[in-house]
Amino acid sequence: MCRTQEIKLSSHSTALNHEASAMANTKLGPVLKDELDIVIPTIRNLDFLEMWRPFFQPYHLIIVQDGDPSKTIRVPDGFDYELYNRMDIDRILGPKASCISFKDSACRCFGYLISKKKYIFTIDDDCFVAKDPSGKEINALEQHIKNVLTPSTPFFFNTLYDPFREGADFVRGYPFTLREGVPTAVSHGLWLNIPDYDAPTQLVKPLERNTRYVNAVLTVPKGTLFPMCGMNLAFNRELIGPAMYFGLMGNGQPIGRYDDMWAGWCMKVICDHLGFGVKTGLPYIWHSKASNPFTNLKKEYKGIYWQEQIIPFFQTVTLPKHCDTVQKCYIELSKLVRENLSSVDEYFVKLADAMLTWIEAWNELNP
Amino acid sequence: MCRTQEIKLSSHSTALNHEASAMANTKLGPVLKDELDIVIPTIRNLDFLEMWRPFFQPYHLIIVQDGDPSKTIRVPDGFDYELYNRMDIDRILGPKASCISFKDSACRCFGYLISKKKYIFTIDDDCFVAKDPSGKEINALEQHIKNVLTPSTPFFFNTLYDPFREGADFVRGYPFTLREGVPTAVSHGLWLNIPDYDAPTQLVKPLERNTRYVNAVLTVPKGTLFPMCGMNLAFNRELIGPAMYFGLMGNGQPIGRYDDMWAGWCMKVICDHLGFGVKTGLPYIWHSKASNPFTNLKKEYKGIYWQEQIIPFFQTVTLPKHCDTVQKCYIELSKLVRENLSSVDEYFVKLADAMLTWIEAWNELNP
Repeated sequence: MCRTQEIKLSSHSTALNHEASAMANTKLGPVLKDELDIVIPTIRNLDFLEMWRPFFQPYHLIIVQDGDPSKTIRVPDGFDYELYNRMDIDRILGPKASCISFKDSACRCFGYLISKKKYIFTIDDDCFVAKDPSGKEINALEQHIKNVLTPSTPFFFNTLYDPFREGADFVRGYPFTLREGVPTAVSHGLWLNIPDYDAPTQLVKPLERNTRYVNAVLTVPKGTLFPMCGMNLAFNRELIGPAMYFGLMGNGQPIGRYDDMWAGWCMKVICDHLGFGVKTGLPYIWHSKASNPFTNLKKEYKGIYWQEQIIPFFQTVTLPKHCDTVQKCYIELSKLVRENLSSVDEYFVKLADAMLTWIEAWNELNP
Repeated sequence: MCRTQEIKLSSHSTALNHEASAMANTKLGPVLKDELDIVIPTIRNLDFLEMWRPFFQPYHLIIVQDGDPSKTIRVPDGFDYELYNRMDIDRILGPKASCISFKDSACRCFGYLISKKKYIFTIDDDCFVAKDPSGKEINALEQHIKNVLTPSTPFFFNTLYDPFREGADFVRGYPFTLREGVPTAVSHGLWLNIPDYDAPTQLVKPLERNTRYVNAVLTVPKGTLFPMCGMNLAFNRELIGPAMYFGLMGNGQPIGRYDDMWAGWCMKVICDHLGFGVKTGLPYIWHSKASNPFTNLKKEYKGIYWQEQIIPFFQTVTLPKHCDTVQKCYIELSKLVRENLSSVDEYFVKLADAMLTWIEAWNELNP
């Protein structure tokens, strides 16, 4: 963890200046062009990138190919990318490759591990460019960058939402000593069209579409958990990367579709402990394809009842004071998972082991 | 407190049905017409009601006249109202009238005390009807009623905001056992045009206007405090009324403009303890008149530094389990205020006394 390398945001106006300068940079060139990787897990040709070309082309892509490694994934011309399939992952990580899931989008976290950049943006290949209510195409990446470059406010709720957005500020009664905020670790974006529902809700509401554009970014308060979706997500890899492990899912595992949830619970507990912020809200992407609710139900059903015990565990877990890096926090968390969740299912023993393997792999690739 | 009289919302679909039936009622007549009072504190003629006529006229108004009681306040024809000036308050409460502030909008809480209805909506007389982005006039009261008649979700954050709004639901990963929600005690509405800033921010940003319409209602999570503004506020008086005391402000007091903040801190701690919810977001009103920042600074300056100690107190205070009514919680809180805040200023001893007087007055008028 390189908190000392973070730009210190020492006041609200500094933060605004910082955002302003980030925006000014767009005239000079794409913001964070050399400091951000876009991670995409996929099993198919990446034609969806055509629509994103104006926004993504200046950035480097890390494509994690899931499933059959002999299949060729076509990437549209003009994109700068590296691609890893299962054979690459096995070759690079050796026995530690066991911590990277197969046949599940959880494999995306290999991209976080192999990146050398400070920031990650990850997006699913069924996500397209959404439009704001004025009809303008939304540059999701640009909004994520604004979110992670401005502080978060986890200790007190601001009723006008993110006080660091243009035209907003802290309202009357907001403590002045909390107005500096804290560094933002994660920016969680949302989805128009197909909402991110669980299988039971998909089955009950097959036709529901999310049409409500909520023009807000807000900090998820300290001590509050939320369901983090991996579809449209950015984070500061230097601040929180080692906590963004997407778990053991898919092939050979009793569960799927809980990879991002797992990362979200672990990450939030660690951010709360270390004093980092998590934002949710803008930007929206256009989510085009509802996954099959029957297949989803099969993947999810254990998670649906396990989470009734997992979430109270994460809501009450406390990390000891000596855990002052993300790695130390994560190792401690794996111990607590083993102690407290192995009674739910023996799967959590395997998962606790994999959490340790992940940290070993992280330290090896990020010395 | 009459929690047992609450409509039990036993499932999400029940809640939706409930909202649907609330809306259906609009065809039969105004929703909650005989169960809601509109409380308005004022020192002037209530011409602002003309603009609200289509929305407020069916409801009963309680007008609390602040300042010179010999002055006549003109109320537009056709409104059903009762009006109390300082002489009325002194006559009705006798020596207990000392707990009701004078020359400060904190006097509005007398209206909460004297009401016999289940719900209160309170609004300032410099607040007008706002328009949504489509240009439609916003019926603020109707949105508040929707907010208080549907449950809150304080234990886990839902990324698509209020899951009980039409077109929304709980997202993937939201624990199923938390989807019933809890009864909503408070609905905190926002303001377009003049934002609710403190004096220092008003001075620094005299021209800032809030033009961002955020189409969201959300539950303020358990354990999180927020700055509650009294300008555009509704609550369930049966659930939380005795906690909505607006403190000692204005005439003869060292502080002003912290009446709603005080109520917000106390109310939130008690809602968290008793398992009630607090929503913020929609509806917006159009706030027309920025108060004088110099006058405000004079009223606020003690609050601005006191709050740096008051807020940590409220963030860490815990109420004992035997406090199972709002009154018991509030009496306990007054004891804790006396013990913990009297070192900040002797004013808090007087305030702790007034909190007890308020509860005595409440019990007398609401046997």
